[in-house]
Amino acid sequence: MIPTLKDVQLAVKRIGPYVHNTPVLTSSTVNQLLQATVFFKCENFQRMGAFKIRGATNAILQLADDERARGVITHSSGNFAAALALAARSLDTKAYIVMPSDAPQVKREAVAGYGAQIIECAPTLDSRESTTQLHQKKTGATFVHPSNDINIILGNSTAVWELAKEVDSLDVVIAPVGGGGLLAGTALATNHLHYYIETIGAEPFGADDAYLSLKTGKIQPSINPKTIADGLKTQLGDKNFPIIQKFVSKIIRVEESEIVDSMKFIWERMKIVIEPSSAVAIAAMFRNSSEFKKRKIGVIISGGNVDLSNLPF
Amino acid sequence: MIPTLKDVQLAVKRIGPYVHNTPVLTSSTVNQLLQATVFFKCENFQRMGAFKIRGATNAILQLADDERARGVITHSSGNFAAALALAARSLDTKAYIVMPSDAPQVKREAVAGYGAQIIECAPTLDSRESTTQLHQKKTGATFVHPSNDINIILGNSTAVWELAKEVDSLDVVIAPVGGGGLLAGTALATNHLHYYIETIGAEPFGADDAYLSLKTGKIQPSINPKTIADGLKTQLGDKNFPIIQKFVSKIIRVEESEIVDSMKFIWERMKIVIEPSSAVAIAAMFRNSSEFKKRKIGVIISGGNVDLSNLPF
Repeated sequence: MIPTLKDVQLAVKRIGPYVHNTPVLTSSTVNQLLQATVFFKCENFQRMGAFKIRGATNAILQLADDERARGVITHSSGNFAAALALAARSLDTKAYIVMPSDAPQVKREAVAGYGAQIIECAPTLDSRESTTQLHQKKTGATFVHPSNDINIILGNSTAVWELAKEVDSLDVVIAPVGGGGLLAGTALATNHLHYYIETIGAEPFGADDAYLSLKTGKIQPSINPKTIADGLKTQLGDKNFPIIQKFVSKIIRVEESEIVDSMKFIWERMKIVIEPSSAVAIAAMFRNSSEFKKRKIGVIISGGNVDLSNLPF
Repeated sequence: MIPTLKDVQLAVKRIGPYVHNTPVLTSSTVNQLLQATVFFKCENFQRMGAFKIRGATNAILQLADDERARGVITHSSGNFAAALALAARSLDTKAYIVMPSDAPQVKREAVAGYGAQIIECAPTLDSRESTTQLHQKKTGATFVHPSNDINIILGNSTAVWELAKEVDSLDVVIAPVGGGGLLAGTALATNHLHYYIETIGAEPFGADDAYLSLKTGKIQPSINPKTIADGLKTQLGDKNFPIIQKFVSKIIRVEESEIVDSMKFIWERMKIVIEPSSAVAIAAMFRNSSEFKKRKIGVIISGGNVDLSNLPF
């Protein structure tokens, strides 16, 4: 059930022509503060501003010709909506995106700008799912889940693969966890490449369903999550949880103030725009700094899509 | 009087070990919008967050041993204060920075953090100059002007040198102009390297003394400048103006709203933090987009030091 090293290698090769091999940045200020060496894999510089284009591209490329001709459909109001829309356009496929009627205008415009068809639904989980099913039947499009899908996980695994190919002998890799697609992919590739590299997840206290799931050994629902890291409000699924259980050593939880402080710190010192979800991984590193001392750390900066008119500082 | 190709080459070699060869970024969105190819030389990723460390380092390295033992002094409340402080620390030299009593606390902390001695003065030009002279006499430190100094100009020239070595056959280079040290250095290196590359300056309408100076053939004072690009409020000097006159083809002026829009656009699309002065160069490119069509353009992103608690959007 768990994808192999070969599966990861094929995904790397498959999506290579359609995604950026994003830069790896370092900061002497961060290294001095932590007394460690940190390598930031900057998926904020990725196409559409987040790692999600990787999974979306891989999922579309795995479709049979007749499936691809009918297009793909998903429900999302966040980065994955834009990712699937852009990936579909790059690969000459149709994308249908089910978005709640209260989705921010800027997100709708991004999705529409990539040429996808937006299907509006009521802002409830029920409406999202029924609307998606209805249009899936109508169009014959293939449903692609934003995180709980092996092809999505494999696509996402390519970010840390690139990082580990560029930076020798990492000790540990940290990635944020929301739906679990990035953390599962990261842990998977890391373990297949160098089993000795530890993979750690980072999660807000206000949305700690992954922490609780790992602790109880059972997927816990994400009930009324409250965090500025809006990309991390979703819950784990049956495809990514087994991978996380097997390969992730632990999940560090962080406070909202730590997320905001880390975000501001990285903007100020590294001069890069990162979104709150990415700041969660950095906050985790600072919160548990003693355990990271003298280690060689990889951090997945998941994305940089932020509403600049509504900043927390 | 005008430095030679050899002078530029020596500066490149001299300061190389002490500064970053900063990354050159591109943006497919920008290229599509302008129907041109734009290369951003990202001095916001430079040490202390701006190109100014280049000139400061070069100036200190040009001192005789006994001068260097006595240290350097300048008056500045902006990026050059931090640059001279950091360069001095890197080169085991003392730095004295004369700062007006109303300088922002964050700037004082940056300068003090780099180990420089801050000397407070009243917030007037008279007090700045007399305080500097007094402490220069007392300490024997060498005065280093932030922009009107051949060694500063030569140090600054190294940014575009690196850019032109990395990117073949640029047609035009755009840099913001305030005191003139960056624009003069950019025009100088560009001309010596490939005489056919055009150098253009960019300046706010609210601080257009360089535009007027070039037009009248005489340095015009910067009287009561008003712009969000606070790094560009200073005026040209007798060392950099002849270089600008000789090698800069023109200066494009931009409105404040264009500066803010360009800054926001770059943050949103390229996910990098740039300061208003850098946005002036980008605004100039968008304002005069028709003349840049199909050209290969280098833009000097001068820095990324911004007060995140006081953004214009």
